[in-house]
Amino acid sequence: MIIVMAPWATSVHIDDVVVHIRAMGFESRLVSGENRNLIAVEGGEHQLLEKSFEAWPGVERVIPVLQPFKLASREYKSNDTVVLVGADRPGLSPITIGGPELHIIAGPCAVENEKITLEIAQRVKAAGCRLLRGGAFKPRTSPYSFQGLGEGGLRVLEKVRAETGLFIVTEVLETSDIEIVSETADVLQVGTRNMSNFRLLQRLGTVKKPVLLKRGMNATIKEFLMAAEYILSNGNPNVILCERGIRTFETYTRFTVDINAIPAVKHLSHLPIIVDPSHGTGVWRLVEPVALAGIAAGADGLLIEVHSDPQHALSDGSQALKPERLPSLLKKVQAIGAVLGRTFSGT
Amino acid sequence: MIIVMAPWATSVHIDDVVVHIRAMGFESRLVSGENRNLIAVEGGEHQLLEKSFEAWPGVERVIPVLQPFKLASREYKSNDTVVLVGADRPGLSPITIGGPELHIIAGPCAVENEKITLEIAQRVKAAGCRLLRGGAFKPRTSPYSFQGLGEGGLRVLEKVRAETGLFIVTEVLETSDIEIVSETADVLQVGTRNMSNFRLLQRLGTVKKPVLLKRGMNATIKEFLMAAEYILSNGNPNVILCERGIRTFETYTRFTVDINAIPAVKHLSHLPIIVDPSHGTGVWRLVEPVALAGIAAGADGLLIEVHSDPQHALSDGSQALKPERLPSLLKKVQAIGAVLGRTFSGT
Amino acid sequence: MIIVMAPWATSVHIDDVVVHIRAMGFESRLVSGENRNLIAVEGGEHQLLEKSFEAWPGVERVIPVLQPFKLASREYKSNDTVVLVGADRPGLSPITIGGPELHIIAGPCAVENEKITLEIAQRVKAAGCRLLRGGAFKPRTSPYSFQGLGEGGLRVLEKVRAETGLFIVTEVLETSDIEIVSETADVLQVGTRNMSNFRLLQRLGTVKKPVLLKRGMNATIKEFLMAAEYILSNGNPNVILCERGIRTFETYTRFTVDINAIPAVKHLSHLPIIVDPSHGTGVWRLVEPVALAGIAAGADGLLIEVHSDPQHALSDGSQALKPERLPSLLKKVQAIGAVLGRTFSGT
Amino acid sequence: MIIVMAPWATSVHIDDVVVHIRAMGFESRLVSGENRNLIAVEGGEHQLLEKSFEAWPGVERVIPVLQPFKLASREYKSNDTVVLVGADRPGLSPITIGGPELHIIAGPCAVENEKITLEIAQRVKAAGCRLLRGGAFKPRTSPYSFQGLGEGGLRVLEKVRAETGLFIVTEVLETSDIEIVSETADVLQVGTRNMSNFRLLQRLGTVKKPVLLKRGMNATIKEFLMAAEYILSNGNPNVILCERGIRTFETYTRFTVDINAIPAVKHLSHLPIIVDPSHGTGVWRLVEPVALAGIAAGADGLLIEVHSDPQHALSDGSQALKPERLPSLLKKVQAIGAVLGRTFSGT
Repeated sequence: MIIVMAPWATSVHIDDVVVHIRAMGFESRLVSGENRNLIAVEGGEHQLLEKSFEAWPGVERVIPVLQPFKLASREYKSNDTVVLVGADRPGLSPITIGGPELHIIAGPCAVENEKITLEIAQRVKAAGCRLLRGGAFKPRTSPYSFQGLGEGGLRVLEKVRAETGLFIVTEVLETSDIEIVSETADVLQVGTRNMSNFRLLQRLGTVKKPVLLKRGMNATIKEFLMAAEYILSNGNPNVILCERGIRTFETYTRFTVDINAIPAVKHLSHLPIIVDPSHGTGVWRLVEPVALAGIAAGADGLLIEVHSDPQHALSDGSQALKPERLPSLLKKVQAIGAVLGRTFSGT
Repeated sequence: MIIVMAPWATSVHIDDVVVHIRAMGFESRLVSGENRNLIAVEGGEHQLLEKSFEAWPGVERVIPVLQPFKLASREYKSNDTVVLVGADRPGLSPITIGGPELHIIAGPCAVENEKITLEIAQRVKAAGCRLLRGGAFKPRTSPYSFQGLGEGGLRVLEKVRAETGLFIVTEVLETSDIEIVSETADVLQVGTRNMSNFRLLQRLGTVKKPVLLKRGMNATIKEFLMAAEYILSNGNPNVILCERGIRTFETYTRFTVDINAIPAVKHLSHLPIIVDPSHGTGVWRLVEPVALAGIAAGADGLLIEVHSDPQHALSDGSQALKPERLPSLLKKVQAIGAVLGRTFSGT
Repeated sequence: MIIVMAPWATSVHIDDVVVHIRAMGFESRLVSGENRNLIAVEGGEHQLLEKSFEAWPGVERVIPVLQPFKLASREYKSNDTVVLVGADRPGLSPITIGGPELHIIAGPCAVENEKITLEIAQRVKAAGCRLLRGGAFKPRTSPYSFQGLGEGGLRVLEKVRAETGLFIVTEVLETSDIEIVSETADVLQVGTRNMSNFRLLQRLGTVKKPVLLKRGMNATIKEFLMAAEYILSNGNPNVILCERGIRTFETYTRFTVDINAIPAVKHLSHLPIIVDPSHGTGVWRLVEPVALAGIAAGADGLLIEVHSDPQHALSDGSQALKPERLPSLLKKVQAIGAVLGRTFSGT
Repeated sequence: MIIVMAPWATSVHIDDVVVHIRAMGFESRLVSGENRNLIAVEGGEHQLLEKSFEAWPGVERVIPVLQPFKLASREYKSNDTVVLVGADRPGLSPITIGGPELHIIAGPCAVENEKITLEIAQRVKAAGCRLLRGGAFKPRTSPYSFQGLGEGGLRVLEKVRAETGLFIVTEVLETSDIEIVSETADVLQVGTRNMSNFRLLQRLGTVKKPVLLKRGMNATIKEFLMAAEYILSNGNPNVILCERGIRTFETYTRFTVDINAIPAVKHLSHLPIIVDPSHGTGVWRLVEPVALAGIAAGADGLLIEVHSDPQHALSDGSQALKPERLPSLLKKVQAIGAVLGRTFSGT
């Protein structure tokens, strides 16, 4: 940590800071900058940042040197984290996310009823996917929109898993739902609007199930990794990150997929990361090219909305792919993955 | 609602849409645009937007005409909503937010202990304020930061109210906390990271207490009003909005206070709105000018972080004002308010 | 164009608008919306938008239906534009951008001297590229930074072309430079800071040379295509677009590459588009994955900064790739391009 | 400047950097951070930042300590710059911008013809203003929009000045126009799209006339001050800054006025700054409250679009105030200014 003193700071101001740092058990060195002194602190950055040094007289600003996350960092753990999904489902062979195999999680935005969910699931399975997405509890911008089937939706997902063998990825909206959703889900999804719901993250840290953590639409990469840190530091190492688009000034698309974030996260962290081109664009026409871009950028998989009747979908129909478009998309995923040494056990 | 058909759309495509709209009970008129037809629908916009017409063959895009919120709109209720605070506290005279009187909510970011909270509260009261802010439950970006005193903090706030007569504004983090926080709080605060926690908003709609709803740092003005709609549509009309800065590319300040939003909200909605220049700038030096700007733009009040010892604050010290700066600030608030016909019963 | 009348608009207000539209030669239809009337205008959108209908009494807002650009639109010209580069250089075989062949434009940010430019150019050529980038006139954020060699830089570029046969892509900063830069350049580059320099764009419309138009860091996709429209409407159809990152709240990277924009532009326009992962990330480590993502998303090529001694580069060294990294990158470009039916005549 | 070495950096890497710094004439100190070493450099930051240390082996990142601007900084010149306007107009008494007196620059977006410009000017003058704005050369997003009267517009402005005694603020679009526009203008305006037109800024540095520099819609506060630095460092100290809204995700308003920037600029720089609430909101209804907010935040004046017939304005009619709204607005400006010790010699 570097503390930049104001040009007008006196030696009393400097001493106050230095003495306080030493009292906390850390050393510092004084460096003469241009018109101002710098106090370079050796160690203790996380503890010292908690102190509001910028409120001290004579302090111009505080410059952190370290990343704010620890357990999520590549520095802490240099080899890639591989998350095992489905180990507790007898009869189904588990899969790994973050290893050489790419995984495509596909399915409807919301679980609408059993018939259509099963129909979509069968198409998803036939295309070579191993995971089904589908929301039972839906966070909707309007109080007047369809809010999901709730527990009934979980029952549908269980039946569909029994029928197809697909693993289930579904959203948990608040801590009081964790228990019930955990019984059904193979991967617990945290939505973009909950990425900074720290209470939820803490509780998910005490669960064993893998967590799919979507990036907040307003979160920096560092804040995204800090959210993962909440889960990791509470004991659950099975975090899968998901880039799903950030909010920018561009309005032609619903969000802007931050493709830079894929290699940036791979550099900063050991956690797997996938891309959601459906929410990330909001336009079904753009889903395939952005999905392929995600794989080319090094993502470990994709999260794609698929609906067999998008015209009558109860939620987000305009960004859903029809199932008949999946095989061709997945064939390209496989081929591009192969260029980067990844496999996809698809069609 | 306007449905823009693609240039290549056939009469079959058009008929499909028109018939479907009629089947839902609404009329439409066909308009020839340049190279494309428009279907202008008469009524039913909220129901029809739930249908994914953009996924229909031949549809280029759907253009909503109405604002997505109803109960929060100025059109629905033309006169200003005035929220009564403290009506259930015997011995204290209640106050109104949204009427001619301006209110400044001041206090520490987090409740740290009784002594310092009381000390700050007394200074806040002496400066002419009627409401104290202070967080017992704190949402923090880092799992390693001080997370608030929890229920102990609520006890402190109650003691401080008993001692000073200040009304209490404090944050509620999730639905399971509503009951306990409601017992202490006179105004329930929803933080920026919870503005899209729709489950929380729904439950707050079933409570009688006024809710201070902070704008999501990534929320448009419309989404902000939609969040209020969640509370209103569940039965609680006592919503106070708070502009607290949005996230932009500017990094010199922590957030960018959207000053345009004050008159925009006043135009679109009947709800009161206040400004938080402390979080909105992140720099104590900028708090006074931005606070005054908020009042000049027509805000109904301010939310200001005040700490008697920002150097040792456990949270956000660098954006807290020292209590000795309050009187001069409030004198200017009073004078600028007077220009706009507002009163402040300050120092 | 749709004109939404306010709920309180009278029939006089409506008539005023309708009569004015008819006087301009266009027809309109009145549609009853919810609590308000809509005036749906048939045709004349571009002329009518010039009128400030939003300033008319009783008008709530004006909703355009068409895209604001014409000549740049896919609707105007459905087949892809293929730009021919180098047709006027005897002895060199021209190339096409926007056809099946991918092109990688590589080279230093700025031309520093002949020796190093030639050295880099030879490596670029050896890797299979046909175009060299290099700035003679440099727009720099700081007045104290290296501003380019100017005309001397153009001389260096000419020598390097003579030596290597690479075509030259170099920036033109203002209209008065067009003539001199055109003599040297095979493609005239317009930088991100000049995308809205409409005077420059107009003059480039009167030139024959292909123009590489970089997206303004703050420009929407529509504004980007409007900038192209300036060039096209002044007579030059040879426009190559370049996505180079937009400004967002993310600070880990210098800009955020808008990968969605590649398929979006391909859908909206017939013009070729390439990606600049060097400026788009600002970090050399992220260049390869984002370059590959661009190709996977359907881009027609790349613009990559390469420097043989980035440690001593006079500009943007930290985002430059070393030439030895090019062959492996281009091999992957070739393989991913092949998945999408594109060719690269590389190593 | 601080150079953060990577955890894996060797002593050879460190020595390379240290030796290079010393060879450039500067000293540095090595500081042991957590898992990594820091090299704290004493002085020479501007020269050293030109070196691409981030491209050196073993370097993790470079942290600047100083602001990148010098002449524009409050540190360089502690007292407020007061810009004199109109000193060379015999018969008119000059005014000062940046002193105690507030100035409101009002007038049409574009000069349309003599009659209407004069009519507006007389209303502007009657309201107590001393400066008229009006564009002769207009940068327009669409090539099909009205582009201004050009030199004819300058003639109109001269006549209007002769008639009313108002000083003229008008835009200069490129270096080749500086001479001609300077003859007419009392203040040369640089538009938001030209804030990073460094060639234009350099040339304006060689002119004596005051320059009104509008903030780029995508520019950070630092970049804004760097743009001013271009003018100052080329010899012209008469720079007036103008906050005119930045581009954010909010779409209800055309731009987001960065109200924080007013006190931030006052803290960082000695230059005067005014606010443009017309472009900053894009909605005439929001102009007054945002104008007042600007004054309350400490701005030195305002730039306001006024049009006597906004319904038929050729440009930006929907954001123009009618002249009859000026007196009431200016009365409030005067009263709010008085609270802050500022005067306005208005109505």
